[in-house]
Amino acid sequence: MMEKELVRTAVCHVLDELRQHPIPLGVSNRHVHLSQTDYQQLFPDQPLAVKKALKQPGQFAAEQTVTVAGPKGHLKNVRILGPLRSQSQIEISRTDARTLGATAPLRLSGKLSNTPGIKLISPFGEITLNEGVIVALRHIHMSPLDALIYGVQHGDSVKVAIEGSSRKTIFDDVAIRVSPEMTLEMHIDTDEANAADVDNPAAFATLVRE
Amino acid sequence: MMEKELVRTAVCHVLDELRQHPIPLGVSNRHVHLSQTDYQQLFPDQPLAVKKALKQPGQFAAEQTVTVAGPKGHLKNVRILGPLRSQSQIEISRTDARTLGATAPLRLSGKLSNTPGIKLISPFGEITLNEGVIVALRHIHMSPLDALIYGVQHGDSVKVAIEGSSRKTIFDDVAIRVSPEMTLEMHIDTDEANAADVDNPAAFATLVRE
Repeated sequence: MMEKELVRTAVCHVLDELRQHPIPLGVSNRHVHLSQTDYQQLFPDQPLAVKKALKQPGQFAAEQTVTVAGPKGHLKNVRILGPLRSQSQIEISRTDARTLGATAPLRLSGKLSNTPGIKLISPFGEITLNEGVIVALRHIHMSPLDALIYGVQHGDSVKVAIEGSSRKTIFDDVAIRVSPEMTLEMHIDTDEANAADVDNPAAFATLVRE
Repeated sequence: MMEKELVRTAVCHVLDELRQHPIPLGVSNRHVHLSQTDYQQLFPDQPLAVKKALKQPGQFAAEQTVTVAGPKGHLKNVRILGPLRSQSQIEISRTDARTLGATAPLRLSGKLSNTPGIKLISPFGEITLNEGVIVALRHIHMSPLDALIYGVQHGDSVKVAIEGSSRKTIFDDVAIRVSPEMTLEMHIDTDEANAADVDNPAAFATLVRE
């Protein structure tokens, strides 16, 4: 009984320590995910080429980029992220939406019903998507083990504090995304990164416990 | 004695009510304040013309705009805010800084020592400033009466919660600026406004009491 209690105390201690670790931050610049069909129309007979692996296993920034063309303005050199997906999706910031003159609702990745479309241009062709333009809801990718450590579940909404910068900020409405293939990483867009001065090397993120 | 207590209770009640009122939000797009000398070089013999009064008494958006020219890019149609000041100051967002390829430290308005300069271009001339480019530290303008109500002082740093949007956020490091000429208003830049989805008509700001 005594030993059991000791083990329990030790485990709680380790879990508390783990929970204090900063959550790695990933700042998502505007990017495009494409379906096989849409990619083929923009880059016929050219395999999607890996430029740089991303932190999430299997995900990569591709060599290929497109121009996103809105009614008011263009965004050039918008990178395609691979691998290709079942549906095309354009992830931009509110700042980008203003540049394009487009609306972009706040959505979880993949939740594309009733989202606006937009035109994509490559050196080889152009397509007009009917839907897929979103501002990504801030979220934390994690493994089931991470979820156990933090005491959260897939679909939860949490608060994350950005500390260490001169623009300390608590982001509420942060979605928890649990998947066995995922590595612990909080994704925010460039507007959010700027608002909390995340470029500051001293900045770090921690889960706010309530 | 009984009456005194009643008055005290009533006053506390009224103050509590007042503190619950949302703080009006003002989103500062990139803008330029100019000294008389700098303005004259850019717009010789042209009076600074009022386009639109701002919320702060006496402050206005001018008809005149300039191009801000950085090493990597330009920002066109950047509005001059009046009246003219003793020192020129360029207020941009981190997003703008990246567009320009310029650095811009986070500063209170007017705190310009050791800030970088930049080139300004008008249809009539151009000048290169030696200093003055900043990202404005988020702040709340208020009157001494407002300060009394909120229990804060000039120079304090407070937390403000943005509620009602889908990107609920608590901004820490918000500077309190008290002046008899000022009207209650929290100023944030476009990055911060986007990060908290302040364009949402349901969004509002309240002081976080600790």
